[in-house]
Amino acid sequence: MQLSTQNSFMASSRATRVLSLTRRPFSSSSSLKFDAGVSMVQGASRGIGLEFVKQLLEKNDKGHVVATCRNPDASTGLAQLKHKFPDRLKLLPLDLTIETSIQASASSVRETYGHLNLLINASGILSIPQVLQPETSLNKLEKSALMLTYEINAVGPILVIKHMWPLLKVGGGFGTERSTAVVASLSARVGSIGDNHLGGWHSYRSSKTALNQLSKTAAVEFARKKDPIVCISLHPGTVDTDLSKPFQKNVPKEKLFSKEFSVQKLLSIIDNVKSNDNGKFFAWDGQEIPW
Amino acid sequence: MQLSTQNSFMASSRATRVLSLTRRPFSSSSSLKFDAGVSMVQGASRGIGLEFVKQLLEKNDKGHVVATCRNPDASTGLAQLKHKFPDRLKLLPLDLTIETSIQASASSVRETYGHLNLLINASGILSIPQVLQPETSLNKLEKSALMLTYEINAVGPILVIKHMWPLLKVGGGFGTERSTAVVASLSARVGSIGDNHLGGWHSYRSSKTALNQLSKTAAVEFARKKDPIVCISLHPGTVDTDLSKPFQKNVPKEKLFSKEFSVQKLLSIIDNVKSNDNGKFFAWDGQEIPW
Ligand SMILES: NC(=O)c1ccc[n+]([C@@H]2O[C@H](COP(=O)([O-])OP(=O)(O)OC[C@H]3O[C@@H](n4cnc5c(N)ncnc54)[C@H](OP(=O)(O)O)[C@@H]3O)[C@@H](O)[C@H]2O)c1
Ligand SMILES: NC(=O)c1ccc[n+]([C@@H]2O[C@H](COP(=O)([O-])OP(=O)(O)OC[C@H]3O[C@@H](n4cnc5c(N)ncnc54)[C@H](OP(=O)(O)O)[C@@H]3O)[C@@H](O)[C@H]2O)c1
Repeated sequence: MQLSTQNSFMASSRATRVLSLTRRPFSSSSSLKFDAGVSMVQGASRGIGLEFVKQLLEKNDKGHVVATCRNPDASTGLAQLKHKFPDRLKLLPLDLTIETSIQASASSVRETYGHLNLLINASGILSIPQVLQPETSLNKLEKSALMLTYEINAVGPILVIKHMWPLLKVGGGFGTERSTAVVASLSARVGSIGDNHLGGWHSYRSSKTALNQLSKTAAVEFARKKDPIVCISLHPGTVDTDLSKPFQKNVPKEKLFSKEFSVQKLLSIIDNVKSNDNGKFFAWDGQEIPW
Repeated sequence: MQLSTQNSFMASSRATRVLSLTRRPFSSSSSLKFDAGVSMVQGASRGIGLEFVKQLLEKNDKGHVVATCRNPDASTGLAQLKHKFPDRLKLLPLDLTIETSIQASASSVRETYGHLNLLINASGILSIPQVLQPETSLNKLEKSALMLTYEINAVGPILVIKHMWPLLKVGGGFGTERSTAVVASLSARVGSIGDNHLGGWHSYRSSKTALNQLSKTAAVEFARKKDPIVCISLHPGTVDTDLSKPFQKNVPKEKLFSKEFSVQKLLSIIDNVKSNDNGKFFAWDGQEIPW
C-alpha cells in the first residue's frame, strides 16, 4: 500500500474526541520536573517499573504516582512504598491481557486526579518457566509463544496508551516543568531491525519491534492533532531484574546495570524530553537507536 | 537486553538440523533463472500471489510451482492455471492459522520434489468486512484486530519459512541460475517505522513491521549457518487487488499498479538477488526501504 492510498483514507476521520475534563490541579512553580503532576507506572510490581515508582516518589514531595500491576496486594515492594507514601501513591490492578482492567484504571485515575502527565509502560515478558523460552533458532518457533509475547509486549501497552490518551491530553505538562505530557514505553535494543546482527529471540524481538511501530504511530497522531503529548520508546540497558536473570551468565559485570542506575538515566531522558523527540527510540544513555 | 546477554544465550544452541534429503533433481544449464527449480507461492488464490504463480509458470517450460491457499478448489484463477499447466503446477491447501496445514504442505513438497528453490509468502490481510477495518485513530484500536492481523501477516509467514527451511536448504540455487534459494515475503511500505509519517492502520502496520523483523531474524540465522538461502522482504507498490480496492479512491491512476507490472518487477528483484541482499527490505523498484 502506498502512502497516498492511506493518506486519503486517513483524511476522512480526524475528529478528535473532545474532553469534558479540564481540571488543572497543579501549578508549575516547582523547581524539579516531577515534584508535582500525576505519573502512572504500568507494570510496577517489581523490576524496573517498581524502581520508577520509587524514584518518582522520592524525587520530590508533591508528585502523585499511580502504580498498576496484575495483583497489587502481592507486591511487597509496592506495599513498602505505600506504607512510606500513603497519600501520594495509588495502587490499581491492571492486567494487560484484560482490556476492561485497563479501562477501569483509566476511570479511576480520571475520578481521582482528572488527568495524567506521565505514563510509563514498564511491563514486559521474555521468558516464563514451562511456558515461554526465547527461541535460539527458527526451528523452535511456536505460534503460542509468538502470540502471547505480542499480546503482552505490544498489544497491552498500546491499549494502555489508548485508554490513558484523554487523560494525558488534559494533563499535558501542567504541574511539571515540561511543556507536554510524556508517554514512555520500555522497548529493547533487540527490537531494532537495523541493529539485529545475532538473530534468535524471535517472539521477543518482533513484539518489541511492533511496540516501536505502535508507539511511533501514536506519536504521529498526537503530533497531527497537536495534543500536548510526547511519545517515546526506551531501551533500559541490560538491567539486573527477574527478566534478565536467566540470561546474565556471560554479561560482563560493568554491562549489567542496577535498576537504580538505569531508572535514573531513563528519568533524565524523560525529564528533558523535547517536542521533536516525539516518536523516537532512545537508549538509557540518550543515544537514538535505529529502527 | 544488551546484545552481549543475548549473545551468550545464543552460542549454546547452534546445532543445525541435519537433513537426509539430498536430491538435486535439476541441472543448472538453463538460460532463464526460473526455467527450472521448484517455487512455492503461499497465498496464491488471487491477487499478487496468483499472478506470481502465472508468471513463474509462463516464464519458462520447465520450472515447477507449488501454489498454496486456504481452499484451492475455490480459486477459479488457480483452476485455470492447473488446466493449462497440469504437470508443472501443484495445488495444496494451507491455512496460515493452522500450523498442521503448513507442516502437511512441507511433507507433500518433500515427497514430490525433495526440495524448494523459492518460497514467496504472498498472503496478507488489511481489512475483512464486518471483522477488520484499518484503524484511522488510536481510539479505534481493538485487541482482536491487532491479534488477528499479527497472526496472519506475521506469525503465519514465519511458520511457513520455519517448515520450508529444510527444503530450501537442500534446494539452494540448484536448477536455477541463482547460487542460493530465495525466501521473499510480501511486506508493505507502511510497515516501515522510519517512513511512518501518516500514522493510522495500527494493526496492519505493526504486523508488517514484525514480519520484517522476523524475516531479518531468519536471514541472520541462515547466514550464520551458511545455508544457501537469501531471505528478503518486498513492498509491491499499491497494486490493484481485492486488498487495496476499498482504499483506492484517492490513488492517482499512475500510482495504482497492475498485478502484472508489480509481479514483473518483484520477480526481477528475486531473479537478481545477491547474497548480500540477505535480510533486506526492497520496494518494487529495487530501492531499499528504511526499517
Ligand atoms: N531487564 C532488562 O535487562 C531489560 C532489557 C531490555 C528491555 N527491558 C524491558 O524493560 C521492561 C521492564 O523489564 P524488567 O526487567 O523490569 O522485568 P520484570 O522484572 O520481569 O518485570 C516485568 C513487569 O511486567 C509485568 N507484567 C508481566 N505480565 C503482565 C501482564 N499480563 N499484565 C500486567 N503486567 C504484567 C510484571 O508484573 P507481574 O509481577 O504481575 O508479573 C512486572 O511488573 C520490560 O518491558 C522489558 O522488556 C528489560
Ligand atoms: N495490493 C496492495 O496494494 C499491497 C500493497 C502493499 C503490500 N501488499 C501485500 O501484498 C500481499 C498480497 O496482497 P494482495 O493485494 O494480493 O491481497 P489479496 O488479493 O487480498 O490476496 C490475499 C491473499 O492472502 C490469502 N490469505 C488470507 N488469509 C489467509 C490465511 N489465513 N491462510 C492462507 N492464506 C490467506 C488470501 O487467500 P484467500 O483467498 O483464502 O482469502 C489471498 O490469496 C499481502 O501481504 C499484502 O499485505 C499489497
